[in-house]
Amino acid sequence: MFQPARGTRDFLPEEMQRRNWALDRIREVFEAYGYEPLGTPAFESWEMLKLKSGEDIINQIYYFRDKSDRELGLRFEWTASLCRVVASHRELPRPFKRYAIGPAWRYERPSEKRFREFWQADVDIVGVADVIADAEVLAVAVDCFKRLGFEGFLIRLNDRRILEAFVEIAGMPKERSLDIFRAVDKLDKIGVEGVMEELAKVGASSEASSRLLELMASKGESMAMLNKIRETLVGSKTGLLGCNALSALTRYATAFGIEPYMVIDFSLARGLDYYTGPVYEVYAEGFEEYGSIAGGGRYDGLIELFGSKPTPATGVSLGIERIVPLLEKKGAFEDLDLGPSVYVASASDAVRAKAIEVAQMLRRSGLSTDLDLMGRSLTRQLDYANRKGFKRVVIVGEKELLEGCVSVRNMETAEQQKVKLDELTDHL
Amino acid sequence: MFQPARGTRDFLPEEMQRRNWALDRIREVFEAYGYEPLGTPAFESWEMLKLKSGEDIINQIYYFRDKSDRELGLRFEWTASLCRVVASHRELPRPFKRYAIGPAWRYERPSEKRFREFWQADVDIVGVADVIADAEVLAVAVDCFKRLGFEGFLIRLNDRRILEAFVEIAGMPKERSLDIFRAVDKLDKIGVEGVMEELAKVGASSEASSRLLELMASKGESMAMLNKIRETLVGSKTGLLGCNALSALTRYATAFGIEPYMVIDFSLARGLDYYTGPVYEVYAEGFEEYGSIAGGGRYDGLIELFGSKPTPATGVSLGIERIVPLLEKKGAFEDLDLGPSVYVASASDAVRAKAIEVAQMLRRSGLSTDLDLMGRSLTRQLDYANRKGFKRVVIVGEKELLEGCVSVRNMETAEQQKVKLDELTDHL
Repeated sequence: MFQPARGTRDFLPEEMQRRNWALDRIREVFEAYGYEPLGTPAFESWEMLKLKSGEDIINQIYYFRDKSDRELGLRFEWTASLCRVVASHRELPRPFKRYAIGPAWRYERPSEKRFREFWQADVDIVGVADVIADAEVLAVAVDCFKRLGFEGFLIRLNDRRILEAFVEIAGMPKERSLDIFRAVDKLDKIGVEGVMEELAKVGASSEASSRLLELMASKGESMAMLNKIRETLVGSKTGLLGCNALSALTRYATAFGIEPYMVIDFSLARGLDYYTGPVYEVYAEGFEEYGSIAGGGRYDGLIELFGSKPTPATGVSLGIERIVPLLEKKGAFEDLDLGPSVYVASASDAVRAKAIEVAQMLRRSGLSTDLDLMGRSLTRQLDYANRKGFKRVVIVGEKELLEGCVSVRNMETAEQQKVKLDELTDHL
Repeated sequence: MFQPARGTRDFLPEEMQRRNWALDRIREVFEAYGYEPLGTPAFESWEMLKLKSGEDIINQIYYFRDKSDRELGLRFEWTASLCRVVASHRELPRPFKRYAIGPAWRYERPSEKRFREFWQADVDIVGVADVIADAEVLAVAVDCFKRLGFEGFLIRLNDRRILEAFVEIAGMPKERSLDIFRAVDKLDKIGVEGVMEELAKVGASSEASSRLLELMASKGESMAMLNKIRETLVGSKTGLLGCNALSALTRYATAFGIEPYMVIDFSLARGLDYYTGPVYEVYAEGFEEYGSIAGGGRYDGLIELFGSKPTPATGVSLGIERIVPLLEKKGAFEDLDLGPSVYVASASDAVRAKAIEVAQMLRRSGLSTDLDLMGRSLTRQLDYANRKGFKRVVIVGEKELLEGCVSVRNMETAEQQKVKLDELTDHL
């Protein structure tokens, strides 16, 4: 018996209907905010994928050669493809607000929470230097989660430039910043001691590491935190730019209605190499221990690496493989009725052709309708309809047909009612 | 500048909106017929993909090894993954009616019409031996095309068993049937002479080849054709089974409302190895020369190769890369309004925060709304809204705000109207 390849999964119909429901709601919110879809291929040139990706991730890319020996790789996230398109299509308007929803692939150690094929739903804004764009993409994420039924949120917020200033203040080597960020990004996973070990590997003294972790340790309500940290950063131009960005972002967040969820957290680094400004992660209240359900940040330096003039950009990515299990846990799907709704049964073999016609009529009116394809007896058809959870069954019988009627059975109450064929669609 | 990998494409927003519109309509019809979604990974084990796929296709599979040296390949169609799931999940009901919509990949020679990444939308019915299932999947395809705006259709219909009988009658080697089918499947592409050459390669005499092509040459209205061919096939049990299947299929097709589009065409073979009964292709009237927009057939022997007990199955696949360009050609997208609909402009910097709040209110009511993120002047905001095709612009101004109002501008007539903020959502 064949199995899905290690780290990948099948989604059986009920599971898939729930996933699709969530993806549809997310798409609705993306479109309500004026984001437009962009389609890019599943695989891209290896050279492009490697660009600014950091060794950790490059090692996780599914790499292959096509039959002309071209080096290719499966996308491991959406951002590189977006940058490629923006760099090669100068006709795209500014701002360019695009969304993308689909799978990405990484050769990671599979676990209960981590898969080698996983879906991401991204919104990005290209061409806006002001942090109003960062506030908007965060508002999109929050509204998606509200639409899905989540209620409270925690948005952790930081700025890479503040972390850069911390690195300098701690007396660490500035040119190792990215390695340092990657190390501190693992704080939640490997703890203080683990991070200290990683920092030692990049050549930081334990004194410097302690100082860095101390600087990063404070978190709290936005404006208070920022005022406090300004004193620490007073000598760092970069650090103060980060502070100003977060102040402005907080003000915009108020207008977007998401400020109450925000917390400045100087320990937030995010693992990706390309962030240049604000970085953020969104958690669902009551489910914080399951990790972030969205994350992102600003990457003003990335698009020019793809051959464009310098172009600011920011974006957020929703982690579908985190979101759907939390929705299950919340019982969000329990009241949803996602399968087909009407079953057309034949009372005898003589009316099977007529039953098909009735089903076709209902389907063409948009009602999700199924009918017997197995030549089963009426009893077994009703059994099947019951097992599959159909709420109503239309029974086509010879006698009723003579009067131009069918019976409609309510499967919950077992009540049956005669309905004229030309009133059936309206009746249902 | 990086480009998409050879044979793959980007879909810019307008193009992607149109694709999504078409895919959404197709999904609606699939669900109206009671098909349920099944999700399977983009890559599968190489061993599984090769199963019963025929050399031509195996050569086109994107093959790679993961970092544990596992042999994998990108799916080249949906059927193998379906069979794997059916064989390993015995709990799935019968009939199992599933749909799948998404990309597949083949290393083919790219052309204007042929891509290495292409989308297919499939419906399949597992567990129904009766050709009522074949009639239903064809009805699904036709209804999808009607929903997309196509009007007339041609459904070419044949049965592999009739072709097998032809091979015997022509005195050709029965064990080379699959090679023979693959050769005759190219009739439209390479013509009679081309097919004769290919048949010579499998060892057929030119006399036998001529006889085969003559047998295959007849096509026409279903019942007449079938009655005629019965005489030819009188000695072949297999051939007559094929005839009976097509007769029954035609009767069911009448009930499903698609019989008027059907034509029996004994030259239709379909390239895939696994078909065992009826095979079919759907063409859009007036666009026949662009090739089939859907195709499929019955594959009763395939699922057991995946480790299940013998299980009948049939299905049809809609070719999205054929369908969308034809819709463009038909002008089907011209009257569709797929982008965001309302733009919120700020009359001055003082009201920008309020403009965000107004946009958020509209978005949360489900209206697709955009607003200025660039700090542009009102004139330039209106320019932008005009260029992007927004029909209505909400102008937030200080004076109107004092009265609890905004202005709503109709961009086509340039008429402006004052509307109370708490009536704005309803007004729009």
